[in-house]
Amino acid sequence: MYVPSDKKRRNSCVFGYKHHLLLRHRHYEDENEWGCGSWLEYTVVVVCASILLLGSLALTLFWVIQYRGGFAWREDPEREFNLHPVLMVAGFITFSGFSILLYRICRCCRRIYVKLLHTIFHALAIPCVAVGFLAVLDSHNLSSPPKPNFYSLHSWIGLVTMGLFALQFVVGFFSFLVLLCCEGATAGFRAALVPIHASFGLTTFMLAIAASLTGLTQKVWLVLKPEEYTAWKEEGIIINSLAMALVALAILVSFAVRSPTLKGDTRMTVTERL
Amino acid sequence: MYVPSDKKRRNSCVFGYKHHLLLRHRHYEDENEWGCGSWLEYTVVVVCASILLLGSLALTLFWVIQYRGGFAWREDPEREFNLHPVLMVAGFITFSGFSILLYRICRCCRRIYVKLLHTIFHALAIPCVAVGFLAVLDSHNLSSPPKPNFYSLHSWIGLVTMGLFALQFVVGFFSFLVLLCCEGATAGFRAALVPIHASFGLTTFMLAIAASLTGLTQKVWLVLKPEEYTAWKEEGIIINSLAMALVALAILVSFAVRSPTLKGDTRMTVTERL
Repeated sequence: MYVPSDKKRRNSCVFGYKHHLLLRHRHYEDENEWGCGSWLEYTVVVVCASILLLGSLALTLFWVIQYRGGFAWREDPEREFNLHPVLMVAGFITFSGFSILLYRICRCCRRIYVKLLHTIFHALAIPCVAVGFLAVLDSHNLSSPPKPNFYSLHSWIGLVTMGLFALQFVVGFFSFLVLLCCEGATAGFRAALVPIHASFGLTTFMLAIAASLTGLTQKVWLVLKPEEYTAWKEEGIIINSLAMALVALAILVSFAVRSPTLKGDTRMTVTERL
Repeated sequence: MYVPSDKKRRNSCVFGYKHHLLLRHRHYEDENEWGCGSWLEYTVVVVCASILLLGSLALTLFWVIQYRGGFAWREDPEREFNLHPVLMVAGFITFSGFSILLYRICRCCRRIYVKLLHTIFHALAIPCVAVGFLAVLDSHNLSSPPKPNFYSLHSWIGLVTMGLFALQFVVGFFSFLVLLCCEGATAGFRAALVPIHASFGLTTFMLAIAASLTGLTQKVWLVLKPEEYTAWKEEGIIINSLAMALVALAILVSFAVRSPTLKGDTRMTVTERL
Protein backbone atom coordinates (compact mmCIF):
# COMPACT_ATOMS: atom_id res chain seq x y z
CA MET A 1 0.00 0.00 0.00
CA TYR A 2 1.29 3.49 -0.88
CA VAL A 3 1.55 5.77 2.11
CA PRO A 4 2.49 9.37 1.19
CA SER A 5 5.19 10.99 3.28
CA ASP A 6 4.26 13.72 5.73
CA LYS A 7 5.70 16.41 3.45
CA LYS A 8 3.82 15.15 0.40
CA ARG A 9 0.56 15.02 2.34
CA ARG A 10 1.12 18.55 3.57
CA ASN A 11 1.86 19.76 0.04
CA SER A 12 -1.20 18.12 -1.43
CA CYS A 13 -3.26 19.53 1.41
CA VAL A 14 -1.89 23.04 0.83
CA PHE A 15 -2.50 22.74 -2.92
CA GLY A 16 -6.04 21.54 -2.25
CA TYR A 17 -6.66 24.47 0.06
CA LYS A 18 -5.26 26.96 -2.46
CA HIS A 19 -7.34 25.44 -5.23
CA HIS A 20 -10.38 25.69 -3.01
CA LEU A 21 -9.59 29.34 -2.26
CA LEU A 22 -9.18 30.05 -5.99
CA LEU A 23 -12.55 28.49 -6.75
CA ARG A 24 -14.13 30.32 -3.88
CA HIS A 25 -12.58 33.59 -5.01
CA ARG A 26 -13.93 33.16 -8.54
CA HIS A 27 -17.31 32.21 -7.13
CA TYR A 28 -17.16 35.29 -4.88
CA GLU A 29 -16.55 37.63 -7.82
CA ASP A 30 -19.34 36.03 -9.85
CA GLU A 31 -21.77 36.27 -6.97
CA ASN A 32 -20.96 39.90 -6.36
CA GLU A 33 -21.35 41.16 -9.90
CA TRP A 34 -23.15 44.49 -9.63
CA GLY A 35 -25.94 46.09 -11.58
CA CYS A 36 -26.15 49.76 -12.54
CA GLY A 37 -28.12 50.75 -9.39
CA SER A 38 -25.54 49.23 -7.07
CA TRP A 39 -22.67 51.05 -8.81
CA LEU A 40 -24.62 54.29 -8.59
CA GLU A 41 -25.20 53.77 -4.83
CA TYR A 42 -21.50 52.91 -4.43
CA THR A 43 -20.34 56.04 -6.30
CA VAL A 44 -22.73 58.40 -4.49
CA VAL A 45 -21.79 57.04 -1.04
CA VAL A 46 -18.03 56.98 -1.70
CA VAL A 47 -17.92 60.46 -3.30
CA CYS A 48 -20.19 62.12 -0.68
CA ALA A 49 -18.40 60.43 2.24
CA SER A 50 -14.98 61.46 0.91
CA ILE A 51 -16.12 65.06 0.39
CA LEU A 52 -17.57 65.18 3.93
CA LEU A 53 -14.55 63.51 5.57
CA LEU A 54 -12.06 65.86 3.91
CA GLY A 55 -14.48 68.81 4.00
CA SER A 56 -15.00 68.64 7.78
CA LEU A 57 -11.22 68.66 8.32
CA ALA A 58 -10.82 71.57 5.88
CA LEU A 59 -13.67 73.48 7.58
CA THR A 60 -12.09 72.95 11.03
CA LEU A 61 -8.74 74.22 9.70
CA PHE A 62 -10.43 77.24 8.09
CA TRP A 63 -12.36 78.08 11.30
CA VAL A 64 -9.28 77.80 13.53
CA ILE A 65 -6.94 79.75 11.22
CA GLN A 66 -9.44 82.42 10.19
CA TYR A 67 -11.26 83.06 13.48
CA ARG A 68 -9.13 81.61 16.31
CA GLY A 69 -5.67 82.93 15.40
CA GLY A 70 -4.03 79.78 14.04
CA PHE A 71 -1.57 77.49 15.80
CA ALA A 72 1.22 77.75 18.34
CA TRP A 73 3.04 75.41 20.73
CA ARG A 74 3.67 75.81 24.48
CA GLU A 75 4.77 79.47 24.23
CA ASP A 76 1.13 80.48 23.64
CA PRO A 77 -1.29 78.12 25.46
CA GLU A 78 -4.40 79.81 24.06
CA ARG A 79 -3.37 79.20 20.46
CA GLU A 80 -1.95 75.77 21.36
CA PHE A 81 -5.55 74.81 22.16
CA ASN A 82 -6.38 75.26 18.46
CA LEU A 83 -4.42 72.11 17.67
CA HIS A 84 -7.01 70.16 19.68
CA PRO A 85 -10.09 70.43 17.39
CA VAL A 86 -8.03 70.07 14.20
CA LEU A 87 -6.08 66.99 15.32
CA MET A 88 -9.10 65.32 16.92
CA VAL A 89 -11.18 65.79 13.77
CA ALA A 90 -8.24 64.52 11.67
CA GLY A 91 -7.74 61.43 13.84
CA PHE A 92 -11.22 60.48 15.03
CA ILE A 93 -13.20 61.61 11.99
CA THR A 94 -11.12 61.78 8.79
CA PHE A 95 -8.63 58.93 9.30
CA SER A 96 -11.05 56.70 11.24
CA GLY A 97 -13.86 57.41 8.78
CA PHE A 98 -11.75 56.46 5.75
CA SER A 99 -10.46 53.43 7.66
CA ILE A 100 -14.04 52.20 8.23
CA LEU A 101 -15.12 52.97 4.68
CA LEU A 102 -12.14 51.11 3.18
CA TYR A 103 -14.06 47.85 3.60
CA ARG A 104 -16.77 49.29 1.37
CA ILE A 105 -14.56 51.29 -1.03
CA CYS A 106 -12.06 48.56 -1.95
CA ARG A 107 -14.27 46.01 -3.63
CA CYS A 108 -11.68 44.24 -5.76
CA CYS A 109 -8.54 44.24 -3.58
CA ARG A 110 -7.42 41.19 -1.64
CA ARG A 111 -8.87 41.21 1.87
CA ILE A 112 -5.42 41.21 3.54
CA TYR A 113 -4.44 44.49 1.79
CA VAL A 114 -7.69 46.15 2.91
CA LYS A 115 -7.03 44.89 6.44
CA LEU A 116 -3.50 46.33 6.40
CA LEU A 117 -4.75 49.69 5.06
CA HIS A 118 -7.49 49.67 7.75
CA THR A 119 -4.76 49.20 10.40
CA ILE A 120 -2.49 51.87 8.84
CA PHE A 121 -5.28 54.49 8.73
CA HIS A 122 -6.20 53.77 12.36
CA ALA A 123 -2.50 53.84 13.30
CA LEU A 124 -2.23 57.28 11.65
CA ALA A 125 -5.12 58.44 13.82
CA ILE A 126 -3.18 57.57 17.02
CA PRO A 127 -0.52 60.36 16.89
CA CYS A 128 -3.22 62.88 15.89
CA VAL A 129 -5.37 61.94 18.89
CA ALA A 130 -2.35 61.80 21.24
CA VAL A 131 -1.02 65.25 20.24
CA GLY A 132 -4.57 66.66 20.19
CA PHE A 133 -5.06 65.40 23.75
CA LEU A 134 -1.68 66.80 24.85
CA ALA A 135 -2.53 70.18 23.29
CA VAL A 136 -5.69 70.64 25.36
CA LEU A 137 -3.98 69.48 28.57
CA ASP A 138 -1.08 71.88 27.95
CA SER A 139 -3.33 74.79 27.07
CA HIS A 140 -5.24 74.26 30.35
CA ASN A 141 -2.22 73.64 32.59
CA LEU A 142 0.03 76.38 31.15
CA SER A 143 -2.53 79.19 31.08
CA SER A 144 -2.44 81.63 34.01
CA PRO A 145 -4.24 80.84 36.21
CA PRO A 146 -4.27 77.16 35.17
CA LYS A 147 -7.65 75.82 34.07
CA PRO A 148 -8.93 72.56 35.56
CA ASN A 149 -9.24 69.40 33.43
CA PHE A 150 -11.89 66.69 33.04
CA TYR A 151 -14.81 68.48 34.64
CA SER A 152 -16.91 68.90 31.50
CA LEU A 153 -19.39 66.60 29.82
CA HIS A 154 -17.33 66.92 26.60
CA SER A 155 -14.15 65.71 28.30
CA TRP A 156 -15.94 62.72 29.84
CA ILE A 157 -17.36 61.67 26.44
CA GLY A 158 -13.91 62.22 24.89
CA LEU A 159 -12.27 59.95 27.46
CA VAL A 160 -14.84 57.17 26.85
CA THR A 161 -14.27 57.50 23.09
CA MET A 162 -10.47 57.32 23.45
CA GLY A 163 -10.80 54.25 25.72
CA LEU A 164 -13.05 52.45 23.23
CA PHE A 165 -10.75 53.43 20.33
CA ALA A 166 -7.68 52.05 22.12
CA LEU A 167 -9.49 48.83 23.07
CA GLN A 168 -10.71 48.33 19.51
CA PHE A 169 -7.21 48.95 18.09
CA VAL A 170 -5.45 46.54 20.45
CA VAL A 171 -8.08 43.78 20.16
CA GLY A 172 -8.33 44.23 16.38
CA PHE A 173 -4.57 44.24 15.86
CA PHE A 174 -3.98 41.06 17.85
CA SER A 175 -7.07 39.19 16.70
CA PHE A 176 -7.11 39.99 13.00
CA LEU A 177 -3.37 40.41 12.26
CA VAL A 178 -1.18 38.72 14.91
CA LEU A 179 -3.43 35.65 15.24
CA LEU A 180 -3.10 35.09 11.46
CA CYS A 181 0.18 33.29 12.33
CA CYS A 182 -1.97 30.29 13.28
CA GLU A 183 -4.66 30.91 10.71
CA GLY A 184 -6.54 27.62 10.89
CA ALA A 185 -6.68 27.29 14.66
CA THR A 186 -8.02 30.82 15.20
CA ALA A 187 -10.50 31.03 12.29
CA GLY A 188 -13.58 30.31 14.43
CA PHE A 189 -12.61 32.84 17.08
CA ARG A 190 -11.84 35.53 14.48
CA ALA A 191 -15.10 34.90 12.61
CA ALA A 192 -17.06 35.27 15.87
CA LEU A 193 -15.23 38.51 16.66
CA VAL A 194 -15.92 40.20 13.28
CA PRO A 195 -19.48 41.44 14.00
CA ILE A 196 -18.51 42.58 17.52
CA HIS A 197 -15.45 44.48 16.20
CA ALA A 198 -17.53 46.05 13.40
CA SER A 199 -20.35 47.01 15.78
CA PHE A 200 -18.05 48.59 18.39
CA GLY A 201 -16.05 50.28 15.60
CA LEU A 202 -19.12 52.08 14.29
CA THR A 203 -20.19 52.94 17.86
CA THR A 204 -16.73 54.45 18.52
CA PHE A 205 -17.08 56.55 15.36
CA MET A 206 -20.54 57.74 16.46
CA LEU A 207 -19.21 58.60 19.93
CA ALA A 208 -16.33 60.51 18.32
CA ILE A 209 -18.94 62.53 16.43
CA ALA A 210 -20.92 63.09 19.66
CA ALA A 211 -17.71 64.21 21.40
CA SER A 212 -16.95 66.64 18.54
CA LEU A 213 -20.49 68.04 18.64
CA THR A 214 -20.39 68.65 22.39
CA GLY A 215 -16.90 70.18 22.01
CA LEU A 216 -18.15 72.55 19.30
CA THR A 217 -21.23 73.48 21.39
CA GLN A 218 -19.03 74.23 24.39
CA LYS A 219 -16.58 76.28 22.32
CA VAL A 220 -19.26 78.31 20.58
CA TRP A 221 -20.80 79.32 23.95
CA LEU A 222 -17.37 80.13 25.38
CA VAL A 223 -16.05 82.27 22.54
CA LEU A 224 -19.19 83.97 21.21
CA LYS A 225 -21.48 86.20 23.23
CA PRO A 226 -25.11 84.93 23.21
CA GLU A 227 -26.21 88.01 21.23
CA GLU A 228 -23.53 87.29 18.60
CA TYR A 229 -24.56 83.64 18.24
CA THR A 230 -28.29 84.41 18.05
CA ALA A 231 -27.60 87.14 15.45
CA TRP A 232 -26.13 84.51 13.11
CA LYS A 233 -22.56 85.83 13.37
CA GLU A 234 -20.29 84.31 10.67
CA GLU A 235 -18.22 82.20 13.08
CA GLY A 236 -21.38 80.71 14.59
CA ILE A 237 -22.65 79.69 11.15
CA ILE A 238 -19.29 78.09 10.31
CA ILE A 239 -19.28 76.06 13.54
CA ASN A 240 -22.90 75.00 12.95
CA SER A 241 -22.05 73.98 9.36
CA LEU A 242 -19.13 71.91 10.61
CA ALA A 243 -21.52 70.22 13.07
CA MET A 244 -23.96 69.52 10.22
CA ALA A 245 -21.16 67.96 8.13
CA LEU A 246 -20.44 65.66 11.09
CA VAL A 247 -24.14 64.76 11.41
CA ALA A 248 -24.29 63.99 7.67
CA LEU A 249 -21.20 61.78 8.11
CA ALA A 250 -22.87 59.90 10.97
CA ILE A 251 -25.86 59.15 8.74
CA LEU A 252 -23.78 58.27 5.65
CA VAL A 253 -21.15 56.08 7.33
CA SER A 254 -23.84 54.13 9.28
CA PHE A 255 -25.69 53.59 6.02
CA ALA A 256 -22.55 52.55 4.12
CA VAL A 257 -21.52 50.04 6.78
CA ARG A 258 -24.92 48.38 6.97
CA SER A 259 -26.21 48.72 3.38
CA PRO A 260 -26.78 45.20 2.03
CA THR A 261 -25.68 46.32 -1.46
CA LEU A 262 -22.37 47.82 -0.35
CA LYS A 263 -21.77 44.97 2.07
CA GLY A 264 -21.93 42.39 -0.69
CA ASP A 265 -22.83 38.78 0.01
CA THR A 266 -23.11 38.35 3.79
CA ARG A 267 -21.89 34.77 3.91
CA MET A 268 -18.76 35.61 1.94
CA THR A 269 -18.20 38.81 3.87
CA VAL A 270 -18.23 37.00 7.18
CA THR A 271 -15.93 34.27 5.86
CA GLU A 272 -13.56 36.63 4.12
CA ARG A 273 -13.41 39.27 6.82
CA LEU A 274 -11.42 37.31 9.38
CA MET B 1 -61.32 15.29 -15.25
CA TYR B 2 -61.87 16.85 -11.80
CA VAL B 3 -61.30 20.59 -11.80
CA PRO B 4 -61.49 22.13 -8.30
CA SER B 5 -63.56 25.25 -7.96
CA ASP B 6 -61.82 28.57 -7.39
CA LYS B 7 -62.86 28.61 -3.75
CA LYS B 8 -61.57 25.09 -3.11
CA ARG B 9 -58.28 25.89 -4.78
CA ARG B 10 -57.95 29.03 -2.65
CA ASN B 11 -58.73 27.09 0.55
CA SER B 12 -56.20 24.39 -0.21
CA CYS B 13 -53.66 27.07 -1.04
CA VAL B 14 -54.32 28.89 2.22
CA PHE B 15 -54.09 25.66 4.18
CA GLY B 16 -50.83 24.77 2.46
CA TYR B 17 -49.41 28.18 3.29
CA LYS B 18 -50.51 27.94 6.94
CA HIS B 19 -49.04 24.44 7.22
CA HIS B 20 -45.80 25.75 5.74
CA LEU B 21 -45.77 28.61 8.25
CA LEU B 22 -46.37 26.17 11.11
CA LEU B 23 -43.46 24.01 10.00
CA ARG B 24 -41.27 27.05 9.55
CA HIS B 25 -42.20 28.34 13.00
CA ARG B 26 -41.29 25.04 14.65
CA HIS B 27 -38.04 24.93 12.70
CA TYR B 28 -37.33 28.52 13.77
CA GLU B 29 -37.73 27.71 17.47
CA ASP B 30 -35.52 24.63 17.17
CA GLU B 31 -32.81 26.56 15.39
CA ASN B 32 -32.80 29.33 17.95
CA GLU B 33 -32.49 27.23 21.08
CA TRP B 34 -30.09 29.07 23.35
CA GLY B 35 -27.22 27.99 25.56
CA CYS B 36 -26.43 29.38 29.00
CA GLY B 37 -24.03 32.07 27.66
CA SER B 38 -26.63 33.46 25.27
CA TRP B 39 -29.25 33.71 28.03
CA LEU B 40 -26.70 35.45 30.26
CA GLU B 41 -25.91 37.99 27.48
CA TYR B 42 -29.64 38.48 26.90
CA THR B 43 -30.36 39.08 30.59
CA VAL B 44 -27.43 41.46 31.11
CA VAL B 45 -28.29 43.53 28.01
CA VAL B 46 -32.04 43.68 28.72
CA VAL B 47 -31.64 44.51 32.43
CA CYS B 48 -28.88 47.13 31.90
CA ALA B 49 -30.68 48.74 28.96
CA SER B 50 -33.96 48.96 30.89
CA ILE B 51 -32.22 50.48 33.92
CA LEU B 52 -30.45 53.04 31.71
CA LEU B 53 -33.57 53.91 29.67
CA LEU B 54 -35.73 54.45 32.75
CA GLY B 55 -32.81 55.84 34.78
CA SER B 56 -31.98 58.58 32.27
CA LEU B 57 -35.63 59.73 32.31
CA ALA B 58 -35.70 59.63 36.11
CA LEU B 59 -32.41 61.57 36.31
CA THR B 60 -33.74 64.24 33.91
CA LEU B 61 -36.89 64.59 36.02
CA PHE B 62 -34.83 64.79 39.23
CA TRP B 63 -32.51 67.44 37.74
CA VAL B 64 -35.36 69.58 36.42
CA ILE B 65 -37.49 69.38 39.58
CA GLN B 66 -34.66 69.69 42.08
CA TYR B 67 -32.45 72.31 40.39
CA ARG B 68 -34.55 74.06 37.72
CA GLY B 69 -37.78 74.78 39.61
CA GLY B 70 -40.08 72.12 38.12
CA PHE B 71 -42.76 72.61 35.48
CA ALA B 72 -45.22 75.28 34.36
CA TRP B 73 -47.21 76.08 31.21
CA ARG B 74 -47.42 79.39 29.30
CA GLU B 75 -47.82 81.55 32.41
CA ASP B 76 -44.12 81.02 33.24
CA PRO B 77 -42.03 80.58 30.04
CA GLU B 78 -38.80 79.92 31.94
CA ARG B 79 -40.25 76.94 33.78
CA GLU B 80 -42.19 75.86 30.67
CA PHE B 81 -38.78 75.25 29.10
CA ASN B 82 -38.23 72.47 31.66
CA LEU B 83 -40.79 70.34 29.85
CA HIS B 84 -38.43 70.29 26.86
CA PRO B 85 -35.58 68.08 28.20
CA VAL B 86 -37.95 65.75 30.08
CA LEU B 87 -40.33 65.16 27.15
CA MET B 88 -37.53 64.87 24.58
CA VAL B 89 -35.70 62.28 26.71
CA ALA B 90 -39.01 60.45 27.28
CA GLY B 91 -39.87 60.39 23.56
CA PHE B 92 -36.54 60.11 21.77
CA ILE B 93 -34.66 58.03 24.35
CA THR B 94 -36.96 56.02 26.65
CA PHE B 95 -39.88 55.18 24.33
CA SER B 96 -37.74 54.93 21.16
CA GLY B 97 -35.08 52.90 22.98
CA PHE B 98 -37.60 50.36 24.30
CA SER B 99 -39.25 50.30 20.87
CA ILE B 100 -35.93 49.34 19.23
CA LEU B 101 -35.04 46.82 21.93
CA LEU B 102 -38.45 45.10 21.68
CA TYR B 103 -37.14 43.14 18.69
CA ARG B 104 -34.42 41.73 20.95
CA ILE B 105 -36.43 41.46 24.19
CA CYS B 106 -39.48 39.59 22.84
CA ARG B 107 -37.95 36.34 21.67
CA CYS B 108 -40.99 34.10 21.85
CA CYS B 109 -43.87 36.39 20.80
CA ARG B 110 -45.38 36.31 17.34
CA ARG B 111 -43.62 38.81 15.05
CA ILE B 112 -46.83 40.74 14.33
CA TYR B 113 -47.34 41.50 18.06
CA VAL B 114 -43.76 42.76 18.37
CA LYS B 115 -44.31 44.91 15.28
CA LEU B 116 -47.50 46.39 16.74
CA LEU B 117 -45.78 47.10 20.08
CA HIS B 118 -42.85 48.69 18.15
CA THR B 119 -45.36 50.99 16.41
CA ILE B 120 -47.23 51.78 19.65
CA PHE B 121 -44.03 52.72 21.51
CA HIS B 122 -42.94 54.97 18.63
CA ALA B 123 -46.45 56.43 18.43
CA LEU B 124 -46.23 57.24 22.18
CA ALA B 125 -43.00 59.09 21.47
CA ILE B 126 -44.75 61.43 19.00
CA PRO B 127 -46.85 63.48 21.50
CA CYS B 128 -43.84 63.69 23.84
CA VAL B 129 -41.63 65.08 21.05
CA ALA B 130 -44.39 67.39 19.77
CA VAL B 131 -45.15 68.92 23.21
CA GLY B 132 -41.42 69.05 24.03
CA PHE B 133 -40.85 71.00 20.80
CA LEU B 134 -43.79 73.32 21.53
CA ALA B 135 -42.48 73.94 25.05
CA VAL B 136 -39.12 75.24 23.85
CA LEU B 137 -40.73 77.39 21.12
CA ASP B 138 -43.17 78.87 23.65
CA SER B 139 -40.52 79.49 26.26
CA HIS B 140 -38.45 81.39 23.65
CA ASN B 141 -41.31 83.34 22.06
CA LEU B 142 -43.14 84.25 25.29
CA SER B 143 -40.12 85.39 27.28
CA SER B 144 -39.49 89.15 27.40
CA PRO B 145 -37.69 90.08 25.26
CA PRO B 146 -38.44 87.08 23.01
CA LYS B 147 -35.46 84.81 22.36
CA PRO B 148 -34.67 83.78 18.77
CA ASN B 149 -35.15 80.18 17.58
CA PHE B 150 -33.10 77.78 15.49
CA TYR B 151 -29.76 79.54 15.63
CA SER B 152 -27.91 76.94 17.71
CA LEU B 153 -26.07 73.81 16.70
CA HIS B 154 -28.30 71.85 19.14
CA SER B 155 -31.49 73.05 17.42
CA TRP B 156 -30.15 72.14 13.97
CA ILE B 157 -29.27 68.61 15.11
CA GLY B 158 -32.68 68.35 16.81
CA LEU B 159 -34.46 69.33 13.59
CA VAL B 160 -32.52 66.72 11.56
CA THR B 161 -33.37 64.08 14.19
CA MET B 162 -37.08 64.97 14.16
CA GLY B 163 -37.12 64.85 10.35
CA LEU B 164 -35.48 61.41 10.27
CA PHE B 165 -37.81 60.16 13.03
CA ALA B 166 -40.91 61.31 11.12
CA LEU B 167 -39.64 59.79 7.86
CA GLN B 168 -38.88 56.48 9.56
CA PHE B 169 -42.30 56.39 11.23
CA VAL B 170 -44.26 57.13 8.05
CA VAL B 171 -42.22 54.78 5.82
CA GLY B 172 -42.22 52.05 8.50
CA PHE B 173 -45.96 52.34 9.17
CA PHE B 174 -46.93 52.12 5.51
CA SER B 175 -44.38 49.52 4.48
CA PHE B 176 -44.55 47.09 7.39
CA LEU B 177 -48.18 47.45 8.50
CA VAL B 178 -50.39 48.94 5.75
CA LEU B 179 -48.74 46.94 2.94
CA LEU B 180 -49.50 43.72 4.86
CA CYS B 181 -52.95 43.93 3.22
CA CYS B 182 -51.33 42.52 0.09
CA GLU B 183 -48.82 40.36 1.92
CA GLY B 184 -47.59 38.18 -0.94
CA ALA B 185 -47.14 40.92 -3.53
CA THR B 186 -45.13 43.19 -1.23
CA ALA B 187 -42.95 40.56 0.51
CA GLY B 188 -39.86 41.24 -1.64
CA PHE B 189 -40.11 44.99 -1.22
CA ARG B 190 -40.60 44.72 2.55
CA ALA B 191 -37.71 42.29 2.92
CA ALA B 192 -35.41 44.67 1.02
CA LEU B 193 -36.53 47.56 3.23
CA VAL B 194 -35.85 45.81 6.57
CA PRO B 195 -32.07 46.44 6.79
CA ILE B 196 -32.49 50.05 5.59
CA HIS B 197 -35.25 50.73 8.16
CA ALA B 198 -33.18 49.08 10.92
CA SER B 199 -30.03 50.99 9.95
CA PHE B 200 -31.75 54.39 9.78
CA GLY B 201 -33.65 53.60 13.00
CA LEU B 202 -30.43 53.08 14.93
CA THR B 203 -28.90 56.17 13.30
CA THR B 204 -31.94 58.24 14.40
CA PHE B 205 -31.49 56.95 17.96
CA MET B 206 -27.78 57.87 17.90
CA LEU B 207 -28.61 61.34 16.54
CA ALA B 208 -31.22 61.76 19.30
CA ILE B 209 -28.47 61.00 21.81
CA ALA B 210 -26.13 63.49 20.07
CA ALA B 211 -28.91 66.12 20.18
CA SER B 212 -29.45 65.45 23.90
CA LEU B 213 -25.73 65.71 24.62
CA THR B 214 -25.37 69.04 22.80
CA GLY B 215 -28.53 70.29 24.55
CA LEU B 216 -27.13 69.35 27.95
CA THR B 217 -23.76 70.96 27.12
CA GLN B 218 -25.49 74.17 26.07
CA LYS B 219 -27.71 74.21 29.16
CA VAL B 220 -24.86 73.57 31.58
CA TRP B 221 -22.86 76.52 30.16
CA LEU B 222 -25.95 78.76 30.21
CA VAL B 223 -27.10 78.05 33.76
CA LEU B 224 -23.83 77.43 35.61
CA LYS B 225 -20.99 79.91 35.90
CA PRO B 226 -17.69 78.47 34.58
CA GLU B 227 -16.21 78.56 38.11
CA GLU B 228 -19.20 76.57 39.42
CA TYR B 229 -18.90 73.92 36.70
CA THR B 230 -15.13 73.56 37.09
CA ALA B 231 -15.53 73.26 40.88
CA TRP B 232 -17.68 70.13 40.41
CA LYS B 233 -20.90 71.77 41.60
CA GLU B 234 -23.63 69.20 42.28
CA GLU B 235 -25.84 70.21 39.33
CA GLY B 236 -22.89 69.91 36.94
CA ILE B 237 -22.14 66.37 38.16
CA ILE B 238 -25.80 65.39 37.73
CA ILE B 239 -25.89 66.72 34.14
CA ASN B 240 -22.59 64.95 33.36
CA SER B 241 -23.93 61.70 34.84
CA LEU B 242 -27.07 61.99 32.72
CA ALA B 243 -24.83 62.45 29.67
CA MET B 244 -22.83 59.36 30.64
CA ALA B 245 -26.03 57.32 30.96
CA LEU B 246 -26.90 58.39 27.40
CA VAL B 247 -23.42 57.43 26.17
CA ALA B 248 -23.76 54.02 27.86
CA LEU B 249 -27.14 53.62 26.14
CA ALA B 250 -25.60 54.44 22.75
CA ILE B 251 -23.02 51.67 23.27
CA LEU B 252 -25.50 49.14 24.68
CA VAL B 253 -28.32 49.63 22.17
CA SER B 254 -25.89 49.50 19.20
CA PHE B 255 -24.47 46.29 20.62
CA ALA B 256 -27.91 44.75 21.27
CA VAL B 257 -29.14 45.54 17.76
CA ARG B 258 -26.10 44.06 16.03
CA SER B 259 -25.08 41.22 18.38
CA PRO B 260 -25.30 37.96 16.41
CA THR B 261 -26.48 36.10 19.53
CA LEU B 262 -29.35 38.46 20.33
CA LYS B 263 -30.24 38.78 16.67
CA GLY B 264 -30.81 35.04 16.29
CA ASP B 265 -30.53 33.27 12.97
CA THR B 266 -29.95 35.89 10.25
CA ARG B 267 -31.81 34.11 7.50
CA MET B 268 -34.90 33.66 9.62
CA THR B 269 -34.67 37.19 10.96
CA VAL B 270 -34.72 38.65 7.49
CA THR B 271 -37.61 36.40 6.45
CA GLU B 272 -39.61 36.92 9.61
CA ARG B 273 -38.99 40.64 10.01
CA LEU B 274 -41.12 41.82 7.12
